[in-house]
Amino acid sequence: MIKLDFSNILSEEIGEGGISINEIEINARKAISLISSRPYKELDFIELYRQDLSKVKELAKKARDYEYFVLLGIGGSALGPKVILEALSPMHNLKKKPKVFIYDNVDPVTFKNIIEVIDLKKTLINVISKSGATSETLASFLIFWRMIRDKRLDVKEHFVFTTDPEKGNLKRLAEEYEIPCLSIPKNVVGRYSVLSPVGVFLAEVLGIKSEEMLEAAKEISEKAFSENLKENPMAVAASSLYLMDRVKGRKIVVFLPYSDRLKTLSEWFCQLWAESLGKEGKGTTPYPSLGTTDQHSQLQLWMEGPEDKVIVFISVERHDCQEEIPEEFHDIEGLRFLGGHTLEELMNTEQLATEMALTMNKKPNLKIILPKINPYSIGQIFQFLQIVTAMTGLLYEINPFNQPGVELGKRLTYGAMGKRGFESEGEEIKDYLKRQRFMI
Amino acid sequence: MIKLDFSNILSEEIGEGGISINEIEINARKAISLISSRPYKELDFIELYRQDLSKVKELAKKARDYEYFVLLGIGGSALGPKVILEALSPMHNLKKKPKVFIYDNVDPVTFKNIIEVIDLKKTLINVISKSGATSETLASFLIFWRMIRDKRLDVKEHFVFTTDPEKGNLKRLAEEYEIPCLSIPKNVVGRYSVLSPVGVFLAEVLGIKSEEMLEAAKEISEKAFSENLKENPMAVAASSLYLMDRVKGRKIVVFLPYSDRLKTLSEWFCQLWAESLGKEGKGTTPYPSLGTTDQHSQLQLWMEGPEDKVIVFISVERHDCQEEIPEEFHDIEGLRFLGGHTLEELMNTEQLATEMALTMNKKPNLKIILPKINPYSIGQIFQFLQIVTAMTGLLYEINPFNQPGVELGKRLTYGAMGKRGFESEGEEIKDYLKRQRFMI
Repeated sequence: MIKLDFSNILSEEIGEGGISINEIEINARKAISLISSRPYKELDFIELYRQDLSKVKELAKKARDYEYFVLLGIGGSALGPKVILEALSPMHNLKKKPKVFIYDNVDPVTFKNIIEVIDLKKTLINVISKSGATSETLASFLIFWRMIRDKRLDVKEHFVFTTDPEKGNLKRLAEEYEIPCLSIPKNVVGRYSVLSPVGVFLAEVLGIKSEEMLEAAKEISEKAFSENLKENPMAVAASSLYLMDRVKGRKIVVFLPYSDRLKTLSEWFCQLWAESLGKEGKGTTPYPSLGTTDQHSQLQLWMEGPEDKVIVFISVERHDCQEEIPEEFHDIEGLRFLGGHTLEELMNTEQLATEMALTMNKKPNLKIILPKINPYSIGQIFQFLQIVTAMTGLLYEINPFNQPGVELGKRLTYGAMGKRGFESEGEEIKDYLKRQRFMI
Repeated sequence: MIKLDFSNILSEEIGEGGISINEIEINARKAISLISSRPYKELDFIELYRQDLSKVKELAKKARDYEYFVLLGIGGSALGPKVILEALSPMHNLKKKPKVFIYDNVDPVTFKNIIEVIDLKKTLINVISKSGATSETLASFLIFWRMIRDKRLDVKEHFVFTTDPEKGNLKRLAEEYEIPCLSIPKNVVGRYSVLSPVGVFLAEVLGIKSEEMLEAAKEISEKAFSENLKENPMAVAASSLYLMDRVKGRKIVVFLPYSDRLKTLSEWFCQLWAESLGKEGKGTTPYPSLGTTDQHSQLQLWMEGPEDKVIVFISVERHDCQEEIPEEFHDIEGLRFLGGHTLEELMNTEQLATEMALTMNKKPNLKIILPKINPYSIGQIFQFLQIVTAMTGLLYEINPFNQPGVELGKRLTYGAMGKRGFESEGEEIKDYLKRQRFMI
């Protein structure tokens, strides 16, 4: 079971920069009460563990016969799948099949590189967009669609759509061309969708038993409503991070896992947190980091820079590999002392030393502890962080499920690209380009 | 030639949240004056273009005959090489040889995965540590050293060291065992070393003409001292970012390239900026981002969250690939409007639309423009950002070349691992572990 150590944000440990257990408790209880009243229908992600996996499993079985699997999606439609790939099947493409490519941008060179490596005849393409209206995803879909048809291949055999159960362009095309289609439940929004077919389909394609992820999510979901705070680390974490901003002015949350396999979990969390909470002038900036690597990159700034951060360690107790550092060069102390320890010991010791160094310098930090990395713990951490984010949003009194701030950029893109109905935005772009620039 | 557009941080464009040209000019001139006085010997990185590449080229020629190339390093010894690999040879391991693995952590699972893929008999291992005392790098070096010897292979044929020209453990071992050794010039510190053999050796292994990178760096270096501000975008960028913190309280610098190939450039820049400037309570937090992907992740927070950021776009004019989005589904407007445009157009339009949306909402932003991505432009952007960082540090009146804040964590790690001379730190760790924890 996932654990939370919140000792190092308490005033008992770090003095006046810390907060009291009493304050944490008050806001944790408030978070539980708020989430229990289910103020938004989008909180339905909490019950995703109830889904029927039969269609996902059936399509995944077929997908495992392909040589290549290309996932088209962006934001919440790509980051969750990326975590599943990199955490649960690291270096996958050098070792296993189908080789998986997650194309989550419109970079033409990345596109070309994927096309050069795959063989379309042996490729299944999973197009993911809840709305069916995501320009980036649709652009690459259109290119693949034309290529598949130019090769006189059957679109039914080469596409799987993951989209809204009722509406949107992808749903419409799925019906018209009989494309296999997986549904993202109506009330589940992109960044809370990793445990829907968005993520579990890829998991099954990789041979991962997604029911283990869902079982783990279920345990976390049930605890989220518990008023016994010792059973509800999500409420304590939400309360702590909220107070660190609101009372202590710490506006950056550094997310720091100590495992290469969790590097993309940082990116996934940063999308979840930033897009959920950054509105009405509120929210904090989530920072994607990685231990031990970033001790040689960011630690200097955390230790001696501005007092604006809370560090959230993600430590992994066991790393599934006991590689030992050999004893060599006994006369060179800088090499001798490493011998006889395992890499795991060094990794976990550095995590502890960094936590201590920060604490000794009165820098608040939390620690989330995973026993190891497997489908079960990944299911837990996904649900843990989704619930913490939603609870924190409710404490801020904002809607953690919308993203009104991205609309203007989309409309300007539509205008520049000539979408009907966006002619005035097209004019605004032209005017902007005519203005004097200060350029050197 | 690299260009800087600073229109959107000016009060002319974004109103009272902006700064005046006059303020920028005053601090830009100050930055030029400070760097011209060469107050730190570590500014020698500016002249790295003068290096003799003959030994690098000779060793790289040999390295290209191997099947696998493993680079061991962390922080400045790994991030620069990563940029060169991913920017200049994307998806390298699926297409070319030698396959390259940059192991920049002590994660045991990543280590095991690399070992499973490579064949040691056909592997060259490049160990990079300026000091020769980096625990993480030495730990993996020791394991490889033992493996190479256990297989009765010749260490001279399987290792290349990149280290200090005179001292340290690696230098000593290189002499004792006749290991080929490349030198990082004495006054060049880790995070400013990408244009030393740290980066140019890997470039040459990949078949990249590193003299093109150095030629580009030379042009930038010469401009850094020009008092004609129209020739010195580095001074203007340094002045702008300094003022955005000091006058406007914007303490986060979002680094936002619009190219997948520049994703690791964000990480490299973040190390450079964070470790150089984060000291004495000063500095700003550099944020690694990527367009268009992070429009679906971070943009909401930039548009409507706290007013604490400056966005630095890196736009790429030409992407070396003219993949066109086909015209299909004329009756579905959400698909129709994309047809006939290229992916490059969509990518660059989204950059422009995001820049406009931020500007219309009075969010300050800068833009660095690269004509395209090649060894020349990568050499330019490396040197551009190194000089901007050093200049900004001089404006803050801190030493941009040290990192005193990381010492405590290192000492505690030594103590826990049993290094001689760090017994009291070992005791401190033991005491810490005995303390009561608040854990749920």
